[in-house]
Amino acid sequence: MAERIIKLTLEYDGSNYAGWQLQADVVTVQGVVEEALAKVLKEPTRVHGAGRTDAGVHAAGQTAHFKTVSAMPVDAFTRALNSLLPDDVSVLSAEEAPPGFHARYSAKARTYRYAVTFADSVFTRRHAWYVRPPLNVGAMSEAAALLAGEHDFAAFGNASEDYDVTVRRITEIRVNETLGGLEVYVTANAFLYKMVRNIMAVMVRVGRGETAPEGVPRLLCGTVRADLKATDAHAPWPPAPPQGLTLMKVWY
Amino acid sequence: MAERIIKLTLEYDGSNYAGWQLQADVVTVQGVVEEALAKVLKEPTRVHGAGRTDAGVHAAGQTAHFKTVSAMPVDAFTRALNSLLPDDVSVLSAEEAPPGFHARYSAKARTYRYAVTFADSVFTRRHAWYVRPPLNVGAMSEAAALLAGEHDFAAFGNASEDYDVTVRRITEIRVNETLGGLEVYVTANAFLYKMVRNIMAVMVRVGRGETAPEGVPRLLCGTVRADLKATDAHAPWPPAPPQGLTLMKVWY
Repeated sequence: MAERIIKLTLEYDGSNYAGWQLQADVVTVQGVVEEALAKVLKEPTRVHGAGRTDAGVHAAGQTAHFKTVSAMPVDAFTRALNSLLPDDVSVLSAEEAPPGFHARYSAKARTYRYAVTFADSVFTRRHAWYVRPPLNVGAMSEAAALLAGEHDFAAFGNASEDYDVTVRRITEIRVNETLGGLEVYVTANAFLYKMVRNIMAVMVRVGRGETAPEGVPRLLCGTVRADLKATDAHAPWPPAPPQGLTLMKVWY
Repeated sequence: MAERIIKLTLEYDGSNYAGWQLQADVVTVQGVVEEALAKVLKEPTRVHGAGRTDAGVHAAGQTAHFKTVSAMPVDAFTRALNSLLPDDVSVLSAEEAPPGFHARYSAKARTYRYAVTFADSVFTRRHAWYVRPPLNVGAMSEAAALLAGEHDFAAFGNASEDYDVTVRRITEIRVNETLGGLEVYVTANAFLYKMVRNIMAVMVRVGRGETAPEGVPRLLCGTVRADLKATDAHAPWPPAPPQGLTLMKVWY
């Protein structure tokens, strides 16, 4: 049989994983998916994810692909994998993908959600960042509007990463109030490493009144994180913690 | 210093515990609380819980007490214990209790919540019972009304438990629709072992139309579970799974 490319859509609670990406000696989501797939296909098979979510980060719509010559009906992959996966990882769907499809490189955009909770509870602390209220949602929405569009997000990348180009285009960013907290949805063509968490750290500063929304554009001038001056009111700041972040959807 | 009785109010995500009660060779909530308390008080100290929640059952308002001659200010117990407890167990408050107070025997009533989800997701499956919709909430509310009051709940106890008296008084039981599911709150003076989960199993049968609400009173005539006839439309039935259950509050 000719080689097929199968696209998986997955959700996972990242609390008990060292992130998506395969690593030695720790349990990763890619690792448990590859382990289940090896049993289904009866041979080791590489799974390529669209986003390398960090330890503690969740996904409601991660995508991944693998290649196989198996003749198994595509729907059967969902059932077969779910019967083998732990209960905090689930395949939502399996589809045939067109030739040349790559979960990561074919992606046109990604949407993330970052959740903030105003109550530090055992039921929220693995899925949201606990921030003491109040936060000024109006000011945060103003800051969000200033981040939307095409900008040099170097200041929001990880200091230790090298990128040729640090310009990214945020096509949508909005703040929603929720029962007991708030959430920020961000969609962009691509993200720098830790970009959403660095954005959230600044937005919460704005929500607390520590930074004015008008201070945000100064961070969009191409200064890399490592070069932000400690005397600058905005820097250095730690990224928001991972557990508030969920990869919601990858767009193709 | 004279002996003090300290009352703790606790919340925990029971997903990773073999229940509240101390057992050999497994991790229990009582075990981790006693371990933390031993470090705080510098001596092993028994903690008595109000409710023996099962493996996978959660608590938003478990209470427990311990005796000590320590002069530590009562508020300091909350901070000291929380700094030592794992992040899925949290002390909400610590108070001085009156002489003779016992978390279990002084309790006047307990309130439990049982959550049903209509979506099987990694984010809900450790905190709710996945039931395929639809459920007839009107019929479930009728059944709930028939369970309220003082009845012989022998049929809702655990078949293997011996009770002298199986009469209990449900002072409140109500069904709420939620985003993506429903929840049932039950308050009673006391509960038989697995009583809420056995009630939920019947209520879901009613919601599915497998049992009419009018069939419920026949279960309140004192027949013990073990003697329910397999030919009876209502029996035998398995209890609803543990992860939907949360001990909300213990009343004194």
